[in-house]
This record gives sequence, structure tokens and C-alpha cells, in this order.
Amino acid sequence: MKKVIGVDLGGTNIKSAIVDEKGNIIKNVTIPTFAERGYKLVVEQIEKAISMLISDEIDGIGIGSPGIVSAEKGTISYPPNFPGWKVVNMKKILEAKFNKPVFVENDANAAAIGEYIYGQKMKKPNFIMVTLGTGVGGGIFYKGELMRGETGGAGEVGHISIDYKGEKCNCGSTGCIEAYAGNQKIIYSVNNKIKTHSESKVFELLGNDLTGLEPKVLFEAAKLGDEFSIKAIAEIGEYLGYGLSNAVNLLDIATIIVGGGVSGFGDFILNPMENIIKSRVMKSIQPRVKVMRSKLGNEAGVKGAASLVKYFN
Amino acid sequence: MKKVIGVDLGGTNIKSAIVDEKGNIIKNVTIPTFAERGYKLVVEQIEKAISMLISDEIDGIGIGSPGIVSAEKGTISYPPNFPGWKVVNMKKILEAKFNKPVFVENDANAAAIGEYIYGQKMKKPNFIMVTLGTGVGGGIFYKGELMRGETGGAGEVGHISIDYKGEKCNCGSTGCIEAYAGNQKIIYSVNNKIKTHSESKVFELLGNDLTGLEPKVLFEAAKLGDEFSIKAIAEIGEYLGYGLSNAVNLLDIATIIVGGGVSGFGDFILNPMENIIKSRVMKSIQPRVKVMRSKLGNEAGVKGAASLVKYFN
Repeated sequence: MKKVIGVDLGGTNIKSAIVDEKGNIIKNVTIPTFAERGYKLVVEQIEKAISMLISDEIDGIGIGSPGIVSAEKGTISYPPNFPGWKVVNMKKILEAKFNKPVFVENDANAAAIGEYIYGQKMKKPNFIMVTLGTGVGGGIFYKGELMRGETGGAGEVGHISIDYKGEKCNCGSTGCIEAYAGNQKIIYSVNNKIKTHSESKVFELLGNDLTGLEPKVLFEAAKLGDEFSIKAIAEIGEYLGYGLSNAVNLLDIATIIVGGGVSGFGDFILNPMENIIKSRVMKSIQPRVKVMRSKLGNEAGVKGAASLVKYFN
Repeated sequence: MKKVIGVDLGGTNIKSAIVDEKGNIIKNVTIPTFAERGYKLVVEQIEKAISMLISDEIDGIGIGSPGIVSAEKGTISYPPNFPGWKVVNMKKILEAKFNKPVFVENDANAAAIGEYIYGQKMKKPNFIMVTLGTGVGGGIFYKGELMRGETGGAGEVGHISIDYKGEKCNCGSTGCIEAYAGNQKIIYSVNNKIKTHSESKVFELLGNDLTGLEPKVLFEAAKLGDEFSIKAIAEIGEYLGYGLSNAVNLLDIATIIVGGGVSGFGDFILNPMENIIKSRVMKSIQPRVKVMRSKLGNEAGVKGAASLVKYFN
């Protein structure tokens, strides 16, 4: 039986796992990234995580990484929040160390590939993958293939702008959906609005201390019927819907798969997203619009990384 | 030598021509469409135009049409501004009549194909075609192939929204760039603004009668150094730039080719477009951004239609 190692390189943790051919996790290891201490230590940490999982049974290693990734060359360039990191040829380093084939991909693209290989299991699918977390990422599958664009940068769903005079985004532009639906932005915006909603169950759940506010708490409150939270989550879904309508119109691809932590909001976020997209795309596309949650759930990162071995081999 | 007939089906006129293998027009015929009098007469008019050009030397016929086109089936469905038209199998009708292979495509996609076949002559190009006229259309070339999406509807550049609270668009959505840069919208917006700009050379050029206002006049005034007109045209380019930044970020395709009547504004519109796109897309894409005018100029419609024969054969 074929087994592979998937490594999801995050700004805080390196999540790694042995994944079997069906996409089940056999064993997993999570260790700190130490991103702030420079790329050399990060590479050592990745090697350490892999060392804890490697064996003769392993057919290959897949790495999902933030930043600009050249899948062809195996390089990871300038990942945001990794100070001092320029261009690292991860493929070369890890193949020399472990003597196994190594495949490197942008983390959002890896999530899309994971969905294709282990998730929805569609043949020659067309879908737009959206990953919701610290940032908003994405990947496009067209006719059963990852669409990479001219340099592997395609699928930047998070930097679709919904308002050219809108919120400032870290990328330098304005109105990008990441500037409305990224994790920190959600917290910031909820913090601002909740002050006039003392009735919200969020206060109760947090014992009146908003410093613990995170998306999970909003979700808990929404499940308890808290109107403020339901509305706040719906608003995020609507912003995402405004942006994704543009992608759907441009690509004539009507299936949206949502992954990443914030996708855990489930129908509270997916339904408003779908409604907005349906109301805004070309009439001929409307009946096909479908927004669904990633089948890989919280393991999308590490499973996506693992899926690279199967996809590229 | 291979010759083909291209037919550009417009709401007002049917423009048709014999085009040689290099894309030169040998002979052309323009007759009225009579769109308002129902689809049967329109089909007769198309047949009439073709009859005036057909001979044993012709290898095939290409039709560029508004509306939803199934290139596979050869059907044209619900073209806007063609009352009473539902679904017409143009390929079947014309192949039966003329006994030549017939290829049907959406007019904006045909313009993109024309650019590929007769225009830029790039190998395996990646580009986004934008056609500026009554509406704003588009087509995407990716790895040397027209990107059709799930149902042939891909490339709807005109319905990328730049402001989710923005101008109402005919498509039912808000903030679409067509609602800012379509011909009528340009005229409407200029008419509104020019009232407080009595110094504009537009008044002079029109003998103070604004009923004759059309994009061409703005262009003439801009060439004379008229600041109002230069600014008005730049603003249209900026709106287009806001929208196209989204397409560039999503596709990682950085070459934009602009065709259609309004592209005649030349650098007055292309430079502001390019500047906005460069300032808004991901940093890794910025240096590659290039906005250029279609090489086919005003003949993009009929040459695009003609190019279908070569592209699909």
C-alpha cells in the first residue's frame, strides 16, 4: 500500500502526517515553525517533522507552503510572515536529505488538489477552491487540472476587490475580500460592532472578556441562536459572495468549495455566500451555482500537501 | 489559397467579408440586421450577406454573434436586443444552405480568437481580450486555447463588479464595469459632467449641440488637448483597470488586449488602465502587466468571425 507524507507549513506550526492512498491520516506530528528565527531553522524543523514519520513505506513527500511557489523548480519565495526568507529550493534540500520524490505547491493550490484527489472525487472537475483563514486563498480546477496561470500565481481569490474605494488590503490594493474576511479582519470588525450589542450571547460565552474573541466563539453563539453572531457571519459570507461572483462570471465555473478554519461556520456562512453569488452572476450561470464545504475539513492543509505526491506523480 | 467568410452579427448591421489566410479583407458587404423584425428575417439577412460573397473558393464560414453561443451545437440563444429570438441553430441552417462548414462563436470570444489567429500571432499565448462597445465583452486565452468554462460563458469581463454598492447593470448585478464603460454609459456620464465645463472643446466640436455627443468626439477633443475629455477618457480606463485587476489576480495572466470602438481612444484610455492594473495586482505580477490595443482595430468583429474557420478546423 502506498503511503505519503504531507507537510503543511504554517506561520506558527508545521503540521505533518502520513496519509494512505485513500486520504486517511495514519500518524501525525505537529511541531512549532519558529518562523521568526529565520529560514534555516524552519528548514531544520521541517526536516525534523519528516524524520519523525519517514520509513521505507513512504513513496513521496508533499509540502504545502505560503508564498510564491514554483512547483516546477521546487522553490518557495518570500512567504509572508517568514522574516529573512528569500528563495529556498525546498525540493532540492529535502530530496537530498530523504532520497524520496518531493513536491512543493502553494498551500491554497495544495488544498484544491487535496479536494480533487481525496475530497469530492469528481472526474475532470471544474471548481473554485476558497480557503478561509488568516488570509483568504484559493485555487482553480478547470477540466480536471489545476489552473496555474503564467507563473503559478493563479487563483488569488482573496485579492478580488469588491470595492475599488474599499478597505485597505495588505497586498497594497483596496477592497480585496481578504480585507473583509481574513481572520483578523473578522475579529476587528466584530469587536467594533459588538459594543452596541450587549444582548449578544458572545459576552456570556466569553465571561464578558472580549480578548478571547475568535471566530469559533461567533460560531458557538450562532448555534445558540445569537442574532448578532448570525448576522456577523452572514455578512462575511456576503462579502465573499460579492467577490466570488466576479470569479464565477469570469470563469464560467459555478462550483465553489470552501475550506479552512472559517469554513467551520457551515451553513451560517455558506448559505449567504451562495445566495449572493446566485443573485449576481449571469442568468445563464445562476441555476448551476453551488457553494459547498471542503470534504477535508480541518485536515485540508496536511491532506492537500500529501495529495501533491499523487497529483504530480 | 484558402479564403473564408466572416460574419459579424450586430444589433444594427451585419458586417461580412471574404478574408484571406493572412487575415486581409478581400471584399466586404454590410447590410442592415433588421433585428427588431424577428429572427427569421435576421437569418435571411445573414444568408443574403453570405450569398453576396460565396464562391467555390470559400473554405468555410464563421459567425460572431452576441448572446449565448454553443460553439459545439452551433446554436445562438437569446441575443440581447434581438426581440423574439429564442434558440436558433445557425450552424445547421447555414450548412444546409451553403454546403460549407460553419462555425459559430460568441462575438467577444471570436474577437479573442481573431487576435490569436490574425493579430498578435503569439505561440501558445496567455491574454485577456476586452472588447469595448455598446457592452464590454471579453475572452480569455490560456496556454494558446480559448477558455470556455463549463458552458462557453467564460470571459465575461464586462460583468466583473468593481463596487458591490455601485451602478446598476443591465445584467441585474451592481458595479459591473459595463455599467461604467459601455458606450451609452460613457455618453450619459459625460453629458452629466460636461455641463459645468463650458471651456471644453467638445462644445466647439459639436457646435454647442450635445445631441451629437459620441465617444469619437471625446477622442477628437482629447487630441486637441481638451482637459475635460482627457480626464473623462482616463476615468473610463481607470474603471476598466479596477475590474481587470481582479481578472489578472485570479488568472495570473498579465497581458490585456483591448479591442472594439472605444479602444480607438488609444493611449488616452490604455495608459490609465495599465497604471491602475499595475498598482493593484499582486507584486509578483506587476512587472508583467501590459495593456495593448488589438491589432485588428475596427475590423476585429468580422476578422474574428472569419478566424473561427481556421481555429476550429
